[in-house]
Amino acid sequence: MIYFTDHDIDRLIEDDVPAGDMTSLLLGLHGQQGRIEIFARNRMVVCCTEEAVRMYQKVGLKVLFAVASGTMLEIGDKILEAEGDAQSLHLIWRTGGAMIEFASGIAERTHLLAKLARSENPSVSVAGTRKHPPYLKKIALKALMAGGGVPHRTGLSDSILLFREHLLFTGGYGQLPALIQRIRLQQKERMVVVEAHSQQEALAAAVAGADAVQLDKLSPVDFERTLVVCREENPGICMIAAGGINASNIAAYAKAGADVLVSSWMYFAPPADIQVKINNLE
Amino acid sequence: MIYFTDHDIDRLIEDDVPAGDMTSLLLGLHGQQGRIEIFARNRMVVCCTEEAVRMYQKVGLKVLFAVASGTMLEIGDKILEAEGDAQSLHLIWRTGGAMIEFASGIAERTHLLAKLARSENPSVSVAGTRKHPPYLKKIALKALMAGGGVPHRTGLSDSILLFREHLLFTGGYGQLPALIQRIRLQQKERMVVVEAHSQQEALAAAVAGADAVQLDKLSPVDFERTLVVCREENPGICMIAAGGINASNIAAYAKAGADVLVSSWMYFAPPADIQVKINNLE
Repeated sequence: MIYFTDHDIDRLIEDDVPAGDMTSLLLGLHGQQGRIEIFARNRMVVCCTEEAVRMYQKVGLKVLFAVASGTMLEIGDKILEAEGDAQSLHLIWRTGGAMIEFASGIAERTHLLAKLARSENPSVSVAGTRKHPPYLKKIALKALMAGGGVPHRTGLSDSILLFREHLLFTGGYGQLPALIQRIRLQQKERMVVVEAHSQQEALAAAVAGADAVQLDKLSPVDFERTLVVCREENPGICMIAAGGINASNIAAYAKAGADVLVSSWMYFAPPADIQVKINNLE
Repeated sequence: MIYFTDHDIDRLIEDDVPAGDMTSLLLGLHGQQGRIEIFARNRMVVCCTEEAVRMYQKVGLKVLFAVASGTMLEIGDKILEAEGDAQSLHLIWRTGGAMIEFASGIAERTHLLAKLARSENPSVSVAGTRKHPPYLKKIALKALMAGGGVPHRTGLSDSILLFREHLLFTGGYGQLPALIQRIRLQQKERMVVVEAHSQQEALAAAVAGADAVQLDKLSPVDFERTLVVCREENPGICMIAAGGINASNIAAYAKAGADVLVSSWMYFAPPADIQVKINNLE
């Protein structure tokens, strides 16, 4: 699980209601009892219901029903149901719904990418980059995984990935053998991944003993040619496709033999569509 | 201006680098001097350069050039330029770029909506809802305004908007006259806005003395009919169109006479495309 702190949940509520819900306060809704129910308006892989439940509970609502993140829903399926004070219902109605819609949009798009990719290669990985919208890492990665993806990198602290922009300061692709040797003397618990923009750069990385090559923006045809050449030199090398991967081309990269398909496209999905029903219980 | 706290900026950096940049540390980039330049790859209304500058300065870079948020850029225009330690460049390269791309995507889409709407009515307002992605209020509202929009509501604390879901607890649209009278006894400094889903509900609000009616998901034709009827009863009433407004229909709602066009569509724009160049200065 990705742990959301109480502060994470509180911030969502407080961002929308920094100084009270002016409308509900003026109407004097406090003390009346109501019910909120959320339903899927389209097919979706739902996500962040657990965080919505915590949000609901924080404002004193009793949660009667909630589906788990990662559940595939049909049109009309119930996502959440809770009861309690009408003022509390209005406090979290939109914030909880917007979070579920946003996260489920990412989960659904990841699911689509994974389905397309795995139609060509059942064992391919679909990985989400760290280029999600700002401040959204936890929700983006939770949704990515709910949809069948994995994080490519959770950030700069978890992995070794040599970009061309690193190699500008270390002598270029020609110095990769010594560079990789030096890295391995220090860090033996991580794969060394090298980004490449051409067959020549990829081959240099493969010969230098990289564990993986991340090919950026090659066509599927060029990707496959480069893969064959790299595997001749380095049979176990992991081949990663990245750069502009989306629903229109992911199957082609999977067919071209990629082990991992890296994308940011899922993070910019349109939000899923939910229906919220509020009822007066009195 | 929307004020970003130091903590807001720090969180962006720390989210991506919670425990050091493993790659740059292993490569020993520290101490080498480099330059980072960011350029527009497409036409865009740029946004959040000020926050990128603060991010750059926080890691010790010297910023040599930056365009202001709201500037309209052509392909190839320079957005930012900074120099300093190669390790610092790598620390913020993607985080700063991803923020500018995300915010500029929203600004550009808002600009498009405003242009389309104002082709029919130069004085119409384009307003962004509070249904932006979670945690993103400051960036979303800054980008909205950079693109020529305004916040509809910054949250629940700033305005009075009676939804049908409020009226469920107060006797329905038939009780609006007494309800609005009671609100005005308490709160005289805010407009009373009533959401309506039909001409009948809108007319009830207009007759009851609402300052504005927000018509949800009416067609432009029905919107115009309803506007005429409401203005007969309440000539000064502000007419707001909301629900599913995007580039395909915003001009029609503007032509139908809406004073304000409320949308969330701009928040789910694809990110703008930037080019980042890093150079070794030695």
